[in-house]
Amino acid sequence: MTAAGEEMHALVERLYPLCRSITGDGVRATLEIVGEYVPLQVHEVPTGTQVLDWTVPQEWNIRDAYIADAAGNRVVDFAASSLHVLGYSVPVSATMPLAELRGHLHTLPDHPSWVPYRTSYYKPEWGFCLAQETLDALPDGEYEVRIDSTLADGHLTYAEHVVPGQIADEVIVSCHVCHPSLANDNLAGIAVATFLARSLAERTPYYTYRFIFAPGTIGAITWLARNAERVDRVKHGLVLACAGDPGQLTYKQSRRGDAEIDRVMRHVLAASERPHSVAEFTPYGYDERQYCSPGFDLGVGSLSRTPYAGYPEYHTSADNPDFVSPEAMADTLAVCREAFAVLDRNRRYVNLSPYGEPQLGRRGLYDALGGRSDTKQAQMAMLWVLSLSDGEHSLLDVTERSGLPFDTVAAAAGALHGAGLIKV
Amino acid sequence: MTAAGEEMHALVERLYPLCRSITGDGVRATLEIVGEYVPLQVHEVPTGTQVLDWTVPQEWNIRDAYIADAAGNRVVDFAASSLHVLGYSVPVSATMPLAELRGHLHTLPDHPSWVPYRTSYYKPEWGFCLAQETLDALPDGEYEVRIDSTLADGHLTYAEHVVPGQIADEVIVSCHVCHPSLANDNLAGIAVATFLARSLAERTPYYTYRFIFAPGTIGAITWLARNAERVDRVKHGLVLACAGDPGQLTYKQSRRGDAEIDRVMRHVLAASERPHSVAEFTPYGYDERQYCSPGFDLGVGSLSRTPYAGYPEYHTSADNPDFVSPEAMADTLAVCREAFAVLDRNRRYVNLSPYGEPQLGRRGLYDALGGRSDTKQAQMAMLWVLSLSDGEHSLLDVTERSGLPFDTVAAAAGALHGAGLIKV
Amino acid sequence: MTAAGEEMHALVERLYPLCRSITGDGVRATLEIVGEYVPLQVHEVPTGTQVLDWTVPQEWNIRDAYIADAAGNRVVDFAASSLHVLGYSVPVSATMPLAELRGHLHTLPDHPSWVPYRTSYYKPEWGFCLAQETLDALPDGEYEVRIDSTLADGHLTYAEHVVPGQIADEVIVSCHVCHPSLANDNLAGIAVATFLARSLAERTPYYTYRFIFAPGTIGAITWLARNAERVDRVKHGLVLACAGDPGQLTYKQSRRGDAEIDRVMRHVLAASERPHSVAEFTPYGYDERQYCSPGFDLGVGSLSRTPYAGYPEYHTSADNPDFVSPEAMADTLAVCREAFAVLDRNRRYVNLSPYGEPQLGRRGLYDALGGRSDTKQAQMAMLWVLSLSDGEHSLLDVTERSGLPFDTVAAAAGALHGAGLIKV
Repeated sequence: MTAAGEEMHALVERLYPLCRSITGDGVRATLEIVGEYVPLQVHEVPTGTQVLDWTVPQEWNIRDAYIADAAGNRVVDFAASSLHVLGYSVPVSATMPLAELRGHLHTLPDHPSWVPYRTSYYKPEWGFCLAQETLDALPDGEYEVRIDSTLADGHLTYAEHVVPGQIADEVIVSCHVCHPSLANDNLAGIAVATFLARSLAERTPYYTYRFIFAPGTIGAITWLARNAERVDRVKHGLVLACAGDPGQLTYKQSRRGDAEIDRVMRHVLAASERPHSVAEFTPYGYDERQYCSPGFDLGVGSLSRTPYAGYPEYHTSADNPDFVSPEAMADTLAVCREAFAVLDRNRRYVNLSPYGEPQLGRRGLYDALGGRSDTKQAQMAMLWVLSLSDGEHSLLDVTERSGLPFDTVAAAAGALHGAGLIKV
Repeated sequence: MTAAGEEMHALVERLYPLCRSITGDGVRATLEIVGEYVPLQVHEVPTGTQVLDWTVPQEWNIRDAYIADAAGNRVVDFAASSLHVLGYSVPVSATMPLAELRGHLHTLPDHPSWVPYRTSYYKPEWGFCLAQETLDALPDGEYEVRIDSTLADGHLTYAEHVVPGQIADEVIVSCHVCHPSLANDNLAGIAVATFLARSLAERTPYYTYRFIFAPGTIGAITWLARNAERVDRVKHGLVLACAGDPGQLTYKQSRRGDAEIDRVMRHVLAASERPHSVAEFTPYGYDERQYCSPGFDLGVGSLSRTPYAGYPEYHTSADNPDFVSPEAMADTLAVCREAFAVLDRNRRYVNLSPYGEPQLGRRGLYDALGGRSDTKQAQMAMLWVLSLSDGEHSLLDVTERSGLPFDTVAAAAGALHGAGLIKV
Repeated sequence: MTAAGEEMHALVERLYPLCRSITGDGVRATLEIVGEYVPLQVHEVPTGTQVLDWTVPQEWNIRDAYIADAAGNRVVDFAASSLHVLGYSVPVSATMPLAELRGHLHTLPDHPSWVPYRTSYYKPEWGFCLAQETLDALPDGEYEVRIDSTLADGHLTYAEHVVPGQIADEVIVSCHVCHPSLANDNLAGIAVATFLARSLAERTPYYTYRFIFAPGTIGAITWLARNAERVDRVKHGLVLACAGDPGQLTYKQSRRGDAEIDRVMRHVLAASERPHSVAEFTPYGYDERQYCSPGFDLGVGSLSRTPYAGYPEYHTSADNPDFVSPEAMADTLAVCREAFAVLDRNRRYVNLSPYGEPQLGRRGLYDALGGRSDTKQAQMAMLWVLSLSDGEHSLLDVTERSGLPFDTVAAAAGALHGAGLIKV
């Protein structure tokens, strides 16, 4: 795990400088790097395509951008950080006094040394983001502003990676790839998703796992629009975001609140005795908003460490690779693996010998010596599985009712299934 | 509101001296005065009319009543307070020693200066109510007792006032008008109902509001008997009683416990941060007993300040106009208005664009600038309404799930409805 | 009750020396003694009979067993306690060194003076149980071991006692009779069941009560197998075990958790203000395991004092008649009687006058004098029964909603039934 943590952090550092947005070459470059770890199927969707209630916008690309003072010194420079340009800025090339320029500048007065992250996807606008202290140091006078960007018909880009399972029913894992130089939001999520995909491929899982790397909102909406007729295959899902900060884990439940993924995540987090919190669904945050919209209402929750907008570094230059750690990402990855290991085995069995207890001893499943008071967990787990296997209760129900570990319950179910005493 | 409080208190003082009972001219005089504030339709139901399991009794009227000592001094005098006569006393004119008279006297030994309120509606009886200290001061000897009352075929009187709404579905507001000189029970309830009716007429409400001024038990039963075929129009209701004492507000839930009026009252009381209590239904108290009887089982709760029989002044001469205040009545009125304002707007909407989020920005409903962490309440409310508008959730559900104010949620629903994104 | 307690303890002492097992003459002798108190129908089921997933085993009988030292002294002697022999030991007659013998000896190192209780019903084996300190005192050397037992085709024995009720629907009371010299587990349960049967016969109960005295597991399974077609008559049931130790009462709920017996037992224990605990169902313990197996899923709970395996004396020679007291058994018996008194009266009524309140005064069920604040419990109980008698709520529901005593509620229902206002 430590090795995986280091590898994930290295991936974050590699992706960090790229200028991602909801379209454009930054997304393509990001997916190309991720594709070195797990094979990706990349989709390009043309500008103007109708996707649900939305339309794929023009593609945005940017080559250079700066504010230069009268002496020609670049006082704000896109080359230093992709955050310096308002996302989706229209091109501009002008000279203007500071007073006029101010209307296009975004700062964080409460964190004067940090650069904010701002966008204007759907309203044509240009602007720069900079530290308040940089702005304060600018003398009055004329400034040259230049944004060498293009807004033109092109494509929206997203990618999928599928780990085929024993059945066609799917679990989706989705992460947004549209944020520029922000480490926790969401390079850490991308890194955890990538390594999770790799680890799931080690053996054929029960479910088919589909990983979606797509720009936020418009990307998830595009995926849903293009998969509307097969979305009923999606039985469970997880949105990964803010997966690497030092805070404790937070699971945000699906809109349903009692979806199987909700119960699995709550169980795994509680059973692991990690400090954590479980949050109710809200229709805000990441792409669970789209997957859980009432028409789809998928069983998709969201796993983060400190949740959306819950830390001061959120959407600022302070969310840099130092803010995320190999240990935190490894921990997020471990919880995902534990949760999917439960999800993959969480069946509802039917007891084929439901009248009285079947004679387990005859089948070698029960101790011959009677009278002792320290009955073993494995035997208790078999009795619990037999008792609750009425087609209504899943192994997770058995686990929660019995207080036994899920692994013990699943092993007992395996033994009973092997003896022909229960069936799915 | 202060003005309304003073006006309500003046109404209480005007009504206080009248000798009301379940029938008779005291009720008629009361309704005549209320009719000066809001127009009333007065109903007269003849003695002997079968009403559900009951029969309208003979009408009771009283002109004079007293106990006089040997010297002819009136030691107990109906002219001083209508409480002095046992309600529905049959006429009597006799002279008897104190020892014999005692069997007809009612006092409150624990509150020796207070006169109790007692009745005997359905068993022919006569009696006087007086202060224990008055009784203690009476010397032995002969006393003249005289009750100049009439029990004769006549009518039971009740009244209605209707505020027509946009739809025919009704909200009933019911208060009992049968108690004699008792201010909190129920002149305060009558006053609040009267001013509530007046305020609802300021604009056409959604529901039709029907105010019922009727004697307790037999009056409500008479109303139900005469409206049995249209009672299914009554969707919600509130019994108003003990509406002016200094205690905190108490909402007693309907028999159902989860009727919409129950949820609305609980929400409004909690959201207003008034100290208050919410009580479970019991089949005792005021006319909610009848409206919530299992055959009707209407969604009718009861709003009081200190509830039924919960204060020492209850059913005694200490429940006089000094016991109720303009401020308390104004507060009860305000809560009723707030509750009906919620009830009137509490619809279930259906999201017409339920697959993914609709693009609010395109419709001018969403900020263009992205990336900020302080999303506004109005936007959050729109997302919540869209998320929960599946035909199952009301705006009150949205309010409780979101933690946003009802007004904000209702405004968001209005904006979305205006944009054609949701329908009722 | 004290007299019953002493009689029950005398019964425990009488039964204590007998060597019971899941078959054999010890069970027969036990049932013969119980039959002196209540008439029993004894059933004999032949070896080899298929019962559900099980087969009735060979019958086991034992005449003598000992370990003797080289000098011929019996160092372990079955005559001193039936616990000394491993239950269902096959016969043995041999001389062997202590080292070899050790593999057949069972002790309790943590309680060196106590003899454990051990069995090997379904795997042919022989063995002795003894105190650790007895074992420690044995010098090395040769020992004679002899178990004069028989395992041969025969019968499994169980008995029933039926108290006929007003209806054919049944309540079963089941206790296991297979444990040898152990007082709390389960001679106390047998004694309480016996005296409970006797007390129920004092008047014809509503339900038919069937008492089952059967060996644990295989006996309950045999009863279920032979009564499979009539088991749907069993509406409620109670397993009695560990009924006499000094601990507080424990009710273990049925698998359903909300069966009527569960609600009745919870109510009676809470209302009696006895210290007690209520435990969730687990598929371990006594014969509730069989009655609650998912194919039957009967509403059968289990009443104990300290529950199964919850006391150090469990399954040891320390569970002797001194460990159980007349007072504890009398208390267990009293709770059973209280519970069945509630169960027997717990009907669902339908209000025949559900529109408004019926006029109780006219029927002599209500005080004529109105206005008092201290309404009597009996009147409140009538209003509650009328309010909730919609066919959905039982008298226990009325009791719990109203907070009134069950007896008061049942008396009110009786009065209303007598007046023709409610029907079953």
